[in-house]
Amino acid sequence: MRYSRDQLIKAVSSQMPEKRWQHTQGVMDSARRLAHQYGADADKAELSSILHDVAKYWPVEKLKSVIQDKQLSNELLLYNKQLWHAEVGAYVAEYDYGIDDIEVLDAIRYHTSGRIGMTLMDKIVCLADYIEPGRDYPGVNNIRELANHSLEEGLVAGLDSTITLLVSRSQIIYPLTVYARNDLIKQLEANS
Amino acid sequence: MRYSRDQLIKAVSSQMPEKRWQHTQGVMDSARRLAHQYGADADKAELSSILHDVAKYWPVEKLKSVIQDKQLSNELLLYNKQLWHAEVGAYVAEYDYGIDDIEVLDAIRYHTSGRIGMTLMDKIVCLADYIEPGRDYPGVNNIRELANHSLEEGLVAGLDSTITLLVSRSQIIYPLTVYARNDLIKQLEANS
Repeated sequence: MRYSRDQLIKAVSSQMPEKRWQHTQGVMDSARRLAHQYGADADKAELSSILHDVAKYWPVEKLKSVIQDKQLSNELLLYNKQLWHAEVGAYVAEYDYGIDDIEVLDAIRYHTSGRIGMTLMDKIVCLADYIEPGRDYPGVNNIRELANHSLEEGLVAGLDSTITLLVSRSQIIYPLTVYARNDLIKQLEANS
Repeated sequence: MRYSRDQLIKAVSSQMPEKRWQHTQGVMDSARRLAHQYGADADKAELSSILHDVAKYWPVEKLKSVIQDKQLSNELLLYNKQLWHAEVGAYVAEYDYGIDDIEVLDAIRYHTSGRIGMTLMDKIVCLADYIEPGRDYPGVNNIRELANHSLEEGLVAGLDSTITLLVSRSQIIYPLTVYARNDLIKQLEANS
C-alpha cells in the first residue's frame, strides 16, 4: 500500500518514545526550512525526515539480522551500533512503506554517517539532524549559524563534532564519516 | 654499497636542517628505549629512526615525481604533503641506502600515518616520533606517560592528537590514520 503523510507519521511515531518523535518533528521542520533556503524539494526533505529514525529503537539483534539477511552493508556491523538504524531505516522505508525515491532512501541511509558525494537531499537531512531545535550539545549553536550560510560548512562542523566526541571517548570512528568530511572540505575549497 | 651506521648518519643528517636532525636523534633515542622496553630489536628501531625523515626536506615536486615515477601509493597524492616524505623515505632507504629489511622499510613508510596491523617496529618508530624529548605540543606529556605502560595506548593518544589538530584546522584527514587508530583500539579491547 501507499501511505499518506498522516498514516506514515502515525506508523513511525508509534515505533519510538515520545522524546524521539519530538526530535523527528524538529528534523522535519529544520529539513523543510533548509530545503526552502537551498532550493531542494521540501516535501521530499520532510518525507526523508519522518522516516530517518524509524529503526532507531529496534532491538540491536533485529537490526543486525536485517543487515545480515538482506545483505545490506556488512562492513557496518564492525562499527558502532548507533550507525545501524540508518541503513535499516532506508530498507524499511522501501520495503515496509513503499518509498521508491532513491533521493529519499539515500538521505535516510546516509543521515548519520554522510558519504562521499552527498546529494543536496543527503546534506539537508544530515544537517537538519544536527541542528533541529531540540538538539543541545557543545558547538550546536555554531553549527546552526554556519547552516544559515552554507550547507557544507554546517555539515563539516557537525561531522567534526561527531569525530571529536568519538576521539574523546576513545571509540572507533566510522571511516565513511571521515571520507564524507574530507569530500565536503574539498567541495568548499573548490568553491572558494 | 652498504652504509655503516656512521656513514648513514652523515648522509641523512646532511639532507636536513640541524633542528630536524636533532629531532631525528631524539627519535633514535626514544625508539631504542621503547624497543628495549617492549622486546624489539633496538638496532633496527634505531636504523628505522635514522632514516624516517630522510626525505622530509625534499622539494614537494621531487617527492611527487618519485611517488608517480616509482608507482608508490598514488592515493597519497590526494592528501596532505606532510605525509609524502614517509612513503618516499622508505623508497630512498631501499634504493639509495640498500636497506632490504621489510620491518625497517615499513616502519619508515608508516611512521606518520600508521596502518591497520602495525608491527611492533611500526608502533615503536611511530610512537617515538610523537614523544621524542624535543617534541612540545598539547598533550605530549600524557602520550609520554601512556607510552610507559602501553605502546597501543600511547599510539591511540598520539593519533588522536593528529586527528584533533586536523579537525581544528579544517584540514582533511588521511583515512589510513583513522583505520590505524580503530585497529589499535580493537587490539586494546581484545586484550582488556
